[in-house]
Amino acid sequence: VSTPSRPSLTRRTVLRQAVVGGAVLAVPAQAAPLEVPRWTSEPGGPFQSYGQPSQWEASVSRSVALPYADIAPGIGTANTPLERLEGTITPNGLHFIRAHAGIPQVDPALHRLVIHGMVRQPLSFDAATLLNYPMVTRTCFIECAGNSYQHSLSQPRQMELGDVHGLFSTAQWTGVPLSVLLDEAGIDPRSNWLLVEGADAVALSRSLPVWKAVQDSFVALYQNGERLRPEQGYPMRLIVPGWQGNLHIKWLRRIKATDTPTHTRDETSRYSLLMPDGKAQEFPFAIPVKSLITRPSYGQVVPGPGQYWISGLAWSGGAPITRVEVSSDGGITWRVAQLDDVPKEYSPVRFRVSWAWNGNPATLMSRAVDASGAIQPSHKEWKKTFHPTNRFHCNAIQSWSVDSDGTIENVFV
Amino acid sequence: VSTPSRPSLTRRTVLRQAVVGGAVLAVPAQAAPLEVPRWTSEPGGPFQSYGQPSQWEASVSRSVALPYADIAPGIGTANTPLERLEGTITPNGLHFIRAHAGIPQVDPALHRLVIHGMVRQPLSFDAATLLNYPMVTRTCFIECAGNSYQHSLSQPRQMELGDVHGLFSTAQWTGVPLSVLLDEAGIDPRSNWLLVEGADAVALSRSLPVWKAVQDSFVALYQNGERLRPEQGYPMRLIVPGWQGNLHIKWLRRIKATDTPTHTRDETSRYSLLMPDGKAQEFPFAIPVKSLITRPSYGQVVPGPGQYWISGLAWSGGAPITRVEVSSDGGITWRVAQLDDVPKEYSPVRFRVSWAWNGNPATLMSRAVDASGAIQPSHKEWKKTFHPTNRFHCNAIQSWSVDSDGTIENVFV
Repeated sequence: VSTPSRPSLTRRTVLRQAVVGGAVLAVPAQAAPLEVPRWTSEPGGPFQSYGQPSQWEASVSRSVALPYADIAPGIGTANTPLERLEGTITPNGLHFIRAHAGIPQVDPALHRLVIHGMVRQPLSFDAATLLNYPMVTRTCFIECAGNSYQHSLSQPRQMELGDVHGLFSTAQWTGVPLSVLLDEAGIDPRSNWLLVEGADAVALSRSLPVWKAVQDSFVALYQNGERLRPEQGYPMRLIVPGWQGNLHIKWLRRIKATDTPTHTRDETSRYSLLMPDGKAQEFPFAIPVKSLITRPSYGQVVPGPGQYWISGLAWSGGAPITRVEVSSDGGITWRVAQLDDVPKEYSPVRFRVSWAWNGNPATLMSRAVDASGAIQPSHKEWKKTFHPTNRFHCNAIQSWSVDSDGTIENVFV
Repeated sequence: VSTPSRPSLTRRTVLRQAVVGGAVLAVPAQAAPLEVPRWTSEPGGPFQSYGQPSQWEASVSRSVALPYADIAPGIGTANTPLERLEGTITPNGLHFIRAHAGIPQVDPALHRLVIHGMVRQPLSFDAATLLNYPMVTRTCFIECAGNSYQHSLSQPRQMELGDVHGLFSTAQWTGVPLSVLLDEAGIDPRSNWLLVEGADAVALSRSLPVWKAVQDSFVALYQNGERLRPEQGYPMRLIVPGWQGNLHIKWLRRIKATDTPTHTRDETSRYSLLMPDGKAQEFPFAIPVKSLITRPSYGQVVPGPGQYWISGLAWSGGAPITRVEVSSDGGITWRVAQLDDVPKEYSPVRFRVSWAWNGNPATLMSRAVDASGAIQPSHKEWKKTFHPTNRFHCNAIQSWSVDSDGTIENVFV
């Protein structure tokens, strides 16, 4: 990643930086002719029918982790490099992956979604049929319930942001409201839950309350305008806005209307919250309020005293973000950050705040608040809320300590 | 493209469709066990560090046209397949391209943006420096001034939507406001124009009024979250929200503050509007109000009488969209379409309207209105406004005639 160099807010600052060798250069008032590099003197390359990133951005990629590679290579993650991205959308090639049986290549001509159980009329749909249904478009984040695993431990890990917190991505999703499909199947009013199941080799399944399904969940067919990527559930996946990523069933093949939750393996043995008394809290659906400073962050270097802009992301599955505060003194004082856009439900917001660094050690932290009044906890508070071995829904504040040489460390404050 | 099949709005419709062999199938109330396809019985494939579309979507690609391939292969276009996309975002791999000297591969370590001319202090920036500046994020469409060339002719062309209108794409762009950079250079208050120039081999250049530069233009570094693609101007391009695509200078290398416009080749010989009297109107900056029905459209087939959803895009460079109307009877009657989102300035909006087709020939049309009161003209009205050979800023209504066999033709109404 490119290291931060001295930004500048006024002409005075710029000129000073030019003098001390900063990256902003003053040029003579009567500028010499601009250099003519190769790409200005020769025609460029061909037009591609499907474009790819620049060769100079090859390092901007997902980091793949396969913890059981020898016995089960399909169990793993691919993290979004949040520290190398800006804005709020994740390009499709970099959307995080969490999969339990590899990435199935599902033939859309053969794939079916069946709705059955407590319905008047079981139905079966293929993707081509769903394309003719009424659709909605919504920009939603998805966060894995196990995101920030490394941050839930008792000691901070020195890893880049994406490696710690990168099971988080955002896309504009388009698909068919579940309410339309359930209405068509004639769901029994006594059905309060849905079993939702994927077509991958573990047939990953979860229980979803009917009220949430009907309120705003949908079967997505498109991701940032194009059809879903295979690793995101092609040809169809569930979007359950603001809730645990694990519920957003990929390669969706079955919706069974039931009266009670099914208590599947992935909502009992995992994706629940272990409380201090050792009991598990099942169905912790909504993603808690959270924020991250993406720049500067571990692995980047602040080259010296000067004016900088701190930038990051904030989101909540509970309610829209109302405020993000940033501290540069380890949480003693906080400043309200500016937001790039009016926060919308289920969509993250980019925050920014200027920072004048005097060169002394500093600790950068961000803290988000949502419209329900929920506030992001300190690492200590978060640890106290759960059993020491709980690894899910970690939204503890991320702190970056900046040393006087500009290097950045991950610290718990 | 997948052909529309019978959508359904009520259970009654569904069951009837099932009976007549539609794609929505009723299954027995006691469903047999679901079939177990290969991808459910075997682990899936590996995790990629940078993902690609599904193998079944290989046909969703840009169509490349190189009209002077033998003498100047760098002059051409690559059109976005709008008829195959949904929502409003264009995935980065499918963003349209218009280039005059191929796609340069610009080394960000060597590339510089120089600001000079009527400024107190000329400045030079590299991309790494700009990354530390205050940034803004904005979702903007870009439309080539020559988009819909095929639609500006006197006879309708039988081509897919993207081939006619696909020099139009949308992304979430992030970059540094021009106001910040001009302020730092100390722009002379007597400077009213900027010459903006790219680093490609034609050094494409245009004149941009200072008021627009300062109001909301910016130097984009990111496109849908990741760094710009080479064909979109990597490492930096200009975004001039709502204005002619040609002004969004790619591979931006120079901004010269001037007192008057420079009258460059690309604003005199081209990218101007030829009026009925044969005179050219220079600087027709803002993209006029426009809409397109993307589905159903030419190349798709409506399989028979039934309920359908018409879907399309509407945008304007002048003011936010306030209303989209759809006609299925060739413009005799119009219905107001529903919009997926609250329209925002410079961002397109997706519209939808249900359509009950009785199987008789029908003509589908959409017409957008923006907050300035501008309304999309008929093809006849548009042709009357300009010289018959004018090919720029064609926003005439697109009409699709549906024959009784469900095939679709491009017609002028």
